[in-house]
Amino acid sequence: MRSGVASDSDLPAGELRGLVLSFKDEVFRVTKKPFPEAAIDQLRGAVMAVFSSWNGKRAIDYRNASGIPHDLGTAVNIVKMVYGNLGDRSGTGVATTRNVTDGEDEPEGDFLMRAQGEDVVSGTRRTRPIAELREEMPRIHAQLVRHMKRLEKHCRDVQDVEFTIENGELWMLQTRDAKRTARAAVRIAVDLADARRITRQEAVARVTPEHIETFLHPQLEAKSKRAAIDKGLLLAKGLNVSPGAAIGRIAFDADTAERMSKAGADPVVLVRAETRPDDVHGMLASAGTVTTRGGRTSHAALVARQFGKPAVVGCQDLVIDAEHKRMQTASGRVLCEGDWLSLDGSTGEVFAGKLATFVPDVQDPYLTKLLSWADAIRRLEVWANADYGRDAQRAREFGAQGIGLCRTEHMFFETDRLPVVQSLILAKTEGERREALDKLLPMQRADFAKLFEVMNGLPVTIRLLDPPLHEFLPDRDTLAAEVTDLRARLRLHDGDPKQVQATLRDKEAMLQSVDALREQNPMLGRRGVRLGIHMPELVRMQVRAIVEAACEAVRKKQRVSPKVMIPLTAISTELEMERAVLEDEARLVMEELGIRVKVQFGTMIEVPRAALVADRIARHAEFFSFGTNDLTQTTFGISRDDAETGFLVEYLQKGILKTNPFATLDVSGVGSLMRICVERGRATREGLHIGICGEHGGDPKSIAFCHEIGLDYVSCSPFRVPVARLAAAHAAMGGKVDQR
Amino acid sequence: MRSGVASDSDLPAGELRGLVLSFKDEVFRVTKKPFPEAAIDQLRGAVMAVFSSWNGKRAIDYRNASGIPHDLGTAVNIVKMVYGNLGDRSGTGVATTRNVTDGEDEPEGDFLMRAQGEDVVSGTRRTRPIAELREEMPRIHAQLVRHMKRLEKHCRDVQDVEFTIENGELWMLQTRDAKRTARAAVRIAVDLADARRITRQEAVARVTPEHIETFLHPQLEAKSKRAAIDKGLLLAKGLNVSPGAAIGRIAFDADTAERMSKAGADPVVLVRAETRPDDVHGMLASAGTVTTRGGRTSHAALVARQFGKPAVVGCQDLVIDAEHKRMQTASGRVLCEGDWLSLDGSTGEVFAGKLATFVPDVQDPYLTKLLSWADAIRRLEVWANADYGRDAQRAREFGAQGIGLCRTEHMFFETDRLPVVQSLILAKTEGERREALDKLLPMQRADFAKLFEVMNGLPVTIRLLDPPLHEFLPDRDTLAAEVTDLRARLRLHDGDPKQVQATLRDKEAMLQSVDALREQNPMLGRRGVRLGIHMPELVRMQVRAIVEAACEAVRKKQRVSPKVMIPLTAISTELEMERAVLEDEARLVMEELGIRVKVQFGTMIEVPRAALVADRIARHAEFFSFGTNDLTQTTFGISRDDAETGFLVEYLQKGILKTNPFATLDVSGVGSLMRICVERGRATREGLHIGICGEHGGDPKSIAFCHEIGLDYVSCSPFRVPVARLAAAHAAMGGKVDQR
Repeated sequence: MRSGVASDSDLPAGELRGLVLSFKDEVFRVTKKPFPEAAIDQLRGAVMAVFSSWNGKRAIDYRNASGIPHDLGTAVNIVKMVYGNLGDRSGTGVATTRNVTDGEDEPEGDFLMRAQGEDVVSGTRRTRPIAELREEMPRIHAQLVRHMKRLEKHCRDVQDVEFTIENGELWMLQTRDAKRTARAAVRIAVDLADARRITRQEAVARVTPEHIETFLHPQLEAKSKRAAIDKGLLLAKGLNVSPGAAIGRIAFDADTAERMSKAGADPVVLVRAETRPDDVHGMLASAGTVTTRGGRTSHAALVARQFGKPAVVGCQDLVIDAEHKRMQTASGRVLCEGDWLSLDGSTGEVFAGKLATFVPDVQDPYLTKLLSWADAIRRLEVWANADYGRDAQRAREFGAQGIGLCRTEHMFFETDRLPVVQSLILAKTEGERREALDKLLPMQRADFAKLFEVMNGLPVTIRLLDPPLHEFLPDRDTLAAEVTDLRARLRLHDGDPKQVQATLRDKEAMLQSVDALREQNPMLGRRGVRLGIHMPELVRMQVRAIVEAACEAVRKKQRVSPKVMIPLTAISTELEMERAVLEDEARLVMEELGIRVKVQFGTMIEVPRAALVADRIARHAEFFSFGTNDLTQTTFGISRDDAETGFLVEYLQKGILKTNPFATLDVSGVGSLMRICVERGRATREGLHIGICGEHGGDPKSIAFCHEIGLDYVSCSPFRVPVARLAAAHAAMGGKVDQR
Repeated sequence: MRSGVASDSDLPAGELRGLVLSFKDEVFRVTKKPFPEAAIDQLRGAVMAVFSSWNGKRAIDYRNASGIPHDLGTAVNIVKMVYGNLGDRSGTGVATTRNVTDGEDEPEGDFLMRAQGEDVVSGTRRTRPIAELREEMPRIHAQLVRHMKRLEKHCRDVQDVEFTIENGELWMLQTRDAKRTARAAVRIAVDLADARRITRQEAVARVTPEHIETFLHPQLEAKSKRAAIDKGLLLAKGLNVSPGAAIGRIAFDADTAERMSKAGADPVVLVRAETRPDDVHGMLASAGTVTTRGGRTSHAALVARQFGKPAVVGCQDLVIDAEHKRMQTASGRVLCEGDWLSLDGSTGEVFAGKLATFVPDVQDPYLTKLLSWADAIRRLEVWANADYGRDAQRAREFGAQGIGLCRTEHMFFETDRLPVVQSLILAKTEGERREALDKLLPMQRADFAKLFEVMNGLPVTIRLLDPPLHEFLPDRDTLAAEVTDLRARLRLHDGDPKQVQATLRDKEAMLQSVDALREQNPMLGRRGVRLGIHMPELVRMQVRAIVEAACEAVRKKQRVSPKVMIPLTAISTELEMERAVLEDEARLVMEELGIRVKVQFGTMIEVPRAALVADRIARHAEFFSFGTNDLTQTTFGISRDDAETGFLVEYLQKGILKTNPFATLDVSGVGSLMRICVERGRATREGLHIGICGEHGGDPKSIAFCHEIGLDYVSCSPFRVPVARLAAAHAAMGGKVDQR
């Protein structure tokens, strides 16, 4: 193979037509002017100086694959310049050794005759597909394909090459690992491993958690996108700050976005010059956000990522005229409020109109295979958070090995149950309370029976009621306003006084009940185990439901593995006392039914004190599960609900925080507590089973940390289970995600 | 001296008239019947059995002075019985070697001729003062005084003796360390040390922090009390669960108590059968609380101690008739709502009427001397929390060595400043904001100038604004009700529509501002350093005020030592950034004024993360101060305001918590974090100055822990400075508070 890229020793003695600098596998052309022969020696001496000044300008960050900076320096190649525009037998092109959209094993690319490289990539001339080169110059085409295969084999990955044909002679100018879509990344890794070109470990290492994530997000259909580009509907390209596709009608301010989203059946896309804290409600109401200003750490970017909403920011080609509710593109196209817009948060493209989307199949055979290889590598188990049978079903399809968190309060909020829950809370007598509990018992039992059935013997961790009770009652502000209004009506003789009076009495009574449960800081209030200790009948009912369902399953010859999880423990005595009550109830049920099942009792670790006194708490817990959301809130002293639309965004923008600690575990603070907890907990109870449930359980960096400190499992939302399976494998490989 | 109490070896061969058991320095008489001589040997064998059964009944808890249980067993003395009722030359009495009320060096006591001991103590016969024994039997009196002196010298403390005169012969029956008032305890300890009977260290060890505490509480006048008892006004004796005297008019329910307290000029005493969570507002509105039921861990006892309110619980002799708003004593006396009641929470006595009280003088010369000895022993410095010059003045009088916490927000709440603070918060333009800040600057400067002047070169630690801004705005609920009411009035045509409309507009605007600052969990919201980062002009103004005041002091040749304290730091970058801004402002002021002062910048440690990453935070802090109130809240995940009237009381009652962690530091949880913080902080900055401010700084047990982990100072309320000085000395003596 003759290559335009030669090593220093290959330097032709004769004519030197250009200077090419290579750094790792990237090759940069510095000049295209021929050098006079006499300058060569001088040039050789100067070359390092040239490079370092050029390098300084571009501010290259020398990092290895793991992101660690290095100072290995660079190689300098001085090579011949070849020309693809010398005549009819000259040409140039770019190609990838496989299809980088879907990963199929078929070269792809474009070329032009009588052209230089920039003519191909600039888009000013219509390129021809590489297949046509076969007809044009069959020998060159065969040679190219052969070279490409060879390069792919040598580099052990799909290559993206540039070539030039100079007077019927093929020169390979450059080769590098090809960029590819998530879908292609998975298939190529699997194909290469199946062909024994790379190991299965390498295949797993080459797919990133972000690939899997993108894989599972809705995306714009490639065909639909191409058609839109052809029709000139690509309005702008901005920064791809939050992945996924969003399609909706344009709104130019947050209030309109919210109103449109509430009113209409169609989704909304919010388009703003930039967003501010008072735009957040509009962003949340929209399918996606586009801004014309701002960068990767702009408010819009941070908030969108935070809430997992697709966004493109900094589309400088768009000019918004907020007053007239319209915007104009660089080419003069005008779009108005209500017009359709499609955006691709993964690429930063914004299109006019309603493009087609698709959600890639999680059952994709390549993905399935790759994840099965990941499973063989990882040590951490991956469980899922699931409240209902349908969630559990999905979790299993995604490969979950257990349920790490079933939030029983979600069941309490269901419309048919909420009135019963309210009558429980408002009960004035033991009898009323009993009645409400008796109604809830069969409902809860059915919930748990379904979970046990789906999980078929895999562990099912059920957290007892956690939120403060006032969450189940009507909103206080609304109620107070109603009371004030009714009082005014009574005073000003509006309406039938008897009727007004009666309504007022009811509302006042409810307001009083709500006020009795009101707390200044409900996050730190009577919730979790504190609620269970205050109202033992309630948690007893929950444990009864769990054990009755488990016994019933055993009777039906199903396997069950129920784990009762007590939330918000801070004091070992709390857990000791609560567990005694619950074990007593479990024993009662088993005696009544004459069936024995093994029920484990454990606790969440979600306040700092629980981690600090884990040695004592472990005496009474058969397992621990880190609730890192609350643990992050209490360790930082941050109320997430307030902060994520408030000062946390400011902190991220000002660089006080590098990442949102609610998305990626704060290793130095919260992580330090977790480490202490694992050590102290296992000092009391050797081999104590410890996991994490909550969002961090699905975050790759956090998963790596969980692996490092020796947790047994991570539990995350069913949709993130595939990501977690891969991330856990990467963690087991020592963080060497990319081994190239 | 002939003593009725003899050691085993002294056992007289002859007649054995009784059996006396002694345990440590307490002596118990088991039987008064003479034993037949023949039974002695048998008795000796049986004596241990007798003792152990008796002991079992009384459930004596064998503990040494430090509260550690031991099993040293007991001594058994078998001695002669003597009789004081044999005739005119017989008698009996009790006496203390000094006055145990005020500590004067003058024996005190009572005796009766022709009587046995129980006649003296039962109160059925009128006793005679010991001085009269001098006239009655001068030789016996002289002998008694001699014995008492000798016993006091031997036992090295004031003694409480019992004696019997049998046919003109004096027998000493018993001696033990005398109980004494706090005032007497201090004087006696000082007198004994001055007389070289004990060392100064021992004198310091013999006074407990509780003594100092009682010393500083209002007390019922001894004379007034004696007179009341003589007049039969002692209604009942209950448990002394929360010290201090309270005098007020009776209220039989919480709402009435609150109403009476708000309405009248007279204080209120709440009298209830028992209290429940919905009585707390009444307890807070009252000077003291009396209950007829419940023990030391009853709700009333816990809440009263929590809020430092005197209380007597479990007065079984009182019968309340809540319906008719009256109560009846055992002797049939009836008291009604509004009648005066006096209670002594230190002794558990409840009197009818309005007794006289006094607050002992903190400048008492004996106390001053004792505390100066304590100062020589302790290593911990004792600073005070003071917001105003007058607090600082008091703090210095009480011996504070610096100000550990000046809460600038207290100044912001003052009536003349609040409107300015509100206009700052509501400012729409930079100009409006600047204007408000310009008004606040001279006020703050004057505050600090006063503090510097009073403290005269001692450190003054000023905490920058800490609370969330909404605390300075009108109450949201009230405002919302006003808005709703105005809307109804407008709708129903009540009043001048123009006027109603105008008021509504104002109120709506304010409500909107309040809502914009509203947070779900304000404790964890935008406060502390977060506020400073959000609104740098505000904290810059504060630092400017501090530095201007300090420079002015230097100009006046005063010494100053200002310390700027940044609250609620959780992230090292937060502090780094904030400090840079503040140092810049300080530099500007000094340049403007041409004066240099040394200003230290430090931070509070009040969220767990700050303790965990103390190594990083210490890079940017010249001192740390633990804010253990917030640190306890976040470590436990407890909102104090909600919990102390809510589940915390339930937890103390159920024994889940042994002590209120907001009163006494939770050593295993919060303390564990503090230990980590001190280690990590000083690993970065050797000798980093670390203190604690907040209530724990005045709690003896917490002070002992602060000493143990090597803090430099504790800072507490001025009133607790004397307690802290003593407690710090005890801590330095290794916790051996009572060395006897």
